[in-house]
Amino acid sequence: MSQAPTPGNGEPVAIICGGGTLPLTVAAAVGRDGRPVVLFPIHGWADPSAFEGYRHHWLHLGSAGRFRRLAHQEGCRDVVMIGNVIRPAIRDLRFDWLTLRLLPRVFRIFKGGDDTLLSGIAKLFEEHGFRLVGAHEVAPEILVAEGPLGLVKPSAAHEDDIARGFELIAAINAFDVGQAVVVANNRVLAIEAAEGTDQMLDRIAALRAGGRINIPENSGVLVKAPKPTQDRRIDLPSIGPRTIEKATQAKLAGIAVAAGETIIAEPARVAEAADRAGLFVVGKRPGATP
Amino acid sequence: MSQAPTPGNGEPVAIICGGGTLPLTVAAAVGRDGRPVVLFPIHGWADPSAFEGYRHHWLHLGSAGRFRRLAHQEGCRDVVMIGNVIRPAIRDLRFDWLTLRLLPRVFRIFKGGDDTLLSGIAKLFEEHGFRLVGAHEVAPEILVAEGPLGLVKPSAAHEDDIARGFELIAAINAFDVGQAVVVANNRVLAIEAAEGTDQMLDRIAALRAGGRINIPENSGVLVKAPKPTQDRRIDLPSIGPRTIEKATQAKLAGIAVAAGETIIAEPARVAEAADRAGLFVVGKRPGATP
Repeated sequence: MSQAPTPGNGEPVAIICGGGTLPLTVAAAVGRDGRPVVLFPIHGWADPSAFEGYRHHWLHLGSAGRFRRLAHQEGCRDVVMIGNVIRPAIRDLRFDWLTLRLLPRVFRIFKGGDDTLLSGIAKLFEEHGFRLVGAHEVAPEILVAEGPLGLVKPSAAHEDDIARGFELIAAINAFDVGQAVVVANNRVLAIEAAEGTDQMLDRIAALRAGGRINIPENSGVLVKAPKPTQDRRIDLPSIGPRTIEKATQAKLAGIAVAAGETIIAEPARVAEAADRAGLFVVGKRPGATP
Repeated sequence: MSQAPTPGNGEPVAIICGGGTLPLTVAAAVGRDGRPVVLFPIHGWADPSAFEGYRHHWLHLGSAGRFRRLAHQEGCRDVVMIGNVIRPAIRDLRFDWLTLRLLPRVFRIFKGGDDTLLSGIAKLFEEHGFRLVGAHEVAPEILVAEGPLGLVKPSAAHEDDIARGFELIAAINAFDVGQAVVVANNRVLAIEAAEGTDQMLDRIAALRAGGRINIPENSGVLVKAPKPTQDRRIDLPSIGPRTIEKATQAKLAGIAVAAGETIIAEPARVAEAADRAGLFVVGKRPGATP
């Protein structure tokens, strides 16, 4: 374990998999680059049917010792954590000895905000001979590139909403809070905090349906950007087919994300769904003028 | 109409009444000061049973001409607009000639953000011989005073959350957005935008119930403050018994508002409900250290 980790040398990457399709998007991208992967799907989060085609070992939440043993046996040093995470059900927890030993520290880590949480976890991995790496470090193609993803492009008015959205996110950066806002015709309709992007978009749909916001259909932009303080190895903002679905239900005009700093799950499906719904999806360099 | 308005001279105040109990709180407070009031409850918003004890004329939304005629007949020049406002049902609209004439301007006013809306409306009143005044100008006792309202007081940890909440509201001031946030143990759980305070508190309750946020019961503070840019004659933040109810359901520790800049409906009921729920309600001078 004294040797420095050297990614890309044929040493397999361990991918700890939460929910959604993002873990498989990452696994496929790493595989295409010729590097082996070993997946560690987590009971209660990962989709049980999705891992057949990959070398994998199921983990229970709380089985840190099992992960350490298996990942070492597989020769993995680089570890990626990716996928949706929800509060686990008690029945999905299986504590092993290593986890029990680490618990007091894990509790302390969880008491901080999101940022503390992530860097605390990264440190834990390092102390056990692993190197926590961002999914985008082993699979750069999962990052949204600059420019429109599908056929639809933002108008000048949309560009104004996008700029306002990025400015607002920058203004609340210091508060370790959500990474997404909805702006329509220069008006801020929603700011994400603990509820997450999907639920924020559900709120827009409900406010529209209830006549609580008076904006034309197909207006309003979802803007997402990472916090400058967050640990990008674990927590880059992400979009996927579900984001398009929710944005369509919220009758938005489109989605703008920070190019090179946002992960996209299933880009082809996202582009197709966006085109079908008439939504734009655009990557923007932070600070770049439209 | 050339004479300058002189409030407090026995000239009646016209109060245009939206929903909720706040209009009656204001009417009672003005009445206690010895000044007559004439209420103008609005169909579809105001509670039909609440106005028996007061001189009043019902208005339909869109009946600007009727309001102008009646208010002039009653000798009112000072006009207060107060109470909850929701998007009206079509059946509640009755356009008269004055309204039709004003409509193009009203549409333009509505196309701007909240701030434009309010100052635009104020200007309309002025052009027709009225003076739009804040409810707190004719009834100062409806403003929250500095210090705790009930028996419960915020702890030092709560004071930290309160300070963080006021800082966050100040950071988003420039974006003409909501006036309220929820902070728990230094973590921002929710930021209000178009949904309003009640619905934001409902969200906290739902996130707790769904296990999406992991904070102890009776922690978290609702913090409210006015935007520096908003027209305080129409849109000071307000709290009332319903705020306590929602904050209780969200299992918060308390509520902090900007003292002297927040309206409270039914303060006695609020204090009693807060004491019963074990919630603090505290007025804070902006920028004052705890």
